[in-house]
Amino acid sequence: MKITVAKRAGFCFGVKRAVKIAFDMASLKQGVYTLGPIIHNPQVVEKLEQKGVYSIEEPSINTKSVIIRTHGIPIEMFNKVSQIGIEVIDATCPFVKKAQEYAKLLRDQGYQVIILGDKDHPEVKSIMSYAGEKVIVTRDGTELKKPNNDNENKLNKKIGIVVQTTQPVEALRKLLCNLVEKAKEMKVFNTICNSTSLRQKETSELCEKVDLMIVVGGKNSANTTQLANLCQSTGVKTYHIETKLELQENWLENVTSIGITAGASTPDWIINEIIERINFIGG
Amino acid sequence: MKITVAKRAGFCFGVKRAVKIAFDMASLKQGVYTLGPIIHNPQVVEKLEQKGVYSIEEPSINTKSVIIRTHGIPIEMFNKVSQIGIEVIDATCPFVKKAQEYAKLLRDQGYQVIILGDKDHPEVKSIMSYAGEKVIVTRDGTELKKPNNDNENKLNKKIGIVVQTTQPVEALRKLLCNLVEKAKEMKVFNTICNSTSLRQKETSELCEKVDLMIVVGGKNSANTTQLANLCQSTGVKTYHIETKLELQENWLENVTSIGITAGASTPDWIINEIIERINFIGG
Repeated sequence: MKITVAKRAGFCFGVKRAVKIAFDMASLKQGVYTLGPIIHNPQVVEKLEQKGVYSIEEPSINTKSVIIRTHGIPIEMFNKVSQIGIEVIDATCPFVKKAQEYAKLLRDQGYQVIILGDKDHPEVKSIMSYAGEKVIVTRDGTELKKPNNDNENKLNKKIGIVVQTTQPVEALRKLLCNLVEKAKEMKVFNTICNSTSLRQKETSELCEKVDLMIVVGGKNSANTTQLANLCQSTGVKTYHIETKLELQENWLENVTSIGITAGASTPDWIINEIIERINFIGG
Repeated sequence: MKITVAKRAGFCFGVKRAVKIAFDMASLKQGVYTLGPIIHNPQVVEKLEQKGVYSIEEPSINTKSVIIRTHGIPIEMFNKVSQIGIEVIDATCPFVKKAQEYAKLLRDQGYQVIILGDKDHPEVKSIMSYAGEKVIVTRDGTELKKPNNDNENKLNKKIGIVVQTTQPVEALRKLLCNLVEKAKEMKVFNTICNSTSLRQKETSELCEKVDLMIVVGGKNSANTTQLANLCQSTGVKTYHIETKLELQENWLENVTSIGITAGASTPDWIINEIIERINFIGG
């Protein structure tokens, strides 16, 4: 059995940084919480809980310090937490911070901000809070209408675009193709992080060479789910799993080569356990 | 024989305005010249010559007034003509003027200006002169390289895009698709004029309904040539002609429906002569 692991599988820079901050805090202080899960990986979140760092939705009377998750939080929540005197440790991914800053800049320059992404994703919610009242979140811009149209998805003449950092570049291409005739002026910040686009590119290439793809990462992780969708779209048989426990022996029947990739929030130890398990079954 | 003429065939707003200015001047003054042909239609230029208004490349000692052609002229030429005391009558299309202004604005705001169009077209030459030293003219951006690349087609991080007003919107889509991964920040002014995009859309639709397309306009007219290419790309038999004299009887054999479209610089009387000729042959 030949196993190939994508070079950029697993933790990206921003996740590595946030997880380190959280574990460092766990050993330094008590009464530390994360506002929402620090990253979208249930196994890492569980390890942090074992160290006494829990995820909360809102700070309570017992909260002394909060760590801002890698996806960032809305500015209103940030201000609220700061104002009530809770210590704020900011583990927002620096690339997400950049997207927030660009959203604010576009708003200040009079652009209607369009965010390409998933409106329910915490990163998008955080960027939205900087983007002004006219902000629109879209997946590809199809539903948006020209300025002279009278409906709720009406665009302004000047639109500014920022992108959820983990979106595929194809989504941005599609958005621009859809908006090019609808807006007279577009200012576009391509805030897709390099590690996301490289990981997706490598994953596509790997799909061409193997019989089976295993995509490892949280079921609640958008970028991992996107990797799984990407693999499936190439036609290769694909399974998205969180841990070795989900791996089934019959998946490996008649398979001679396996590719493994993992989302930005998947720790190495989970990937390694899966490789060991495949070798055990295959051997 | 059924003949359908595209609703927007022929003179656009900017051309109508420029031609009117030129004929008005011809009857008012002597020693009036146009700097380059006023529009890209040899028959209109010939009619103007009959009224005493000739096209020149450079002003001479006899030049009292010059009319700026609809495509505009480079700012250096504009300044030169003004400085030597020649009267300047500006018939630049207002939409081309907008593209010039946006190019200047982008340059002043620190963007590297990218012009989508044909580098030899007089409109593009006029826009280029406002766009600063780092300007690049491209047809689809394929040859352009990321900022970290070291070659002559190296892009800056901040690029600003303006478009030759008669380009097809598909070309702008293609450019944006090519540049989206190469630039971190893009500011795009879609300066394609509405009449161009509507004319192209109508022409595409007409191609679906007829056996033969006749595209009327100057062989030196970029927008007419683009219309002819567009028709050909739909698979319909297409002829690009300047006047009724080029029309050949055998083109109409086994044809029951003809579509006629014309570039922005084609006068109505030429289109009408062609319709009469088709009716004569067909009848």
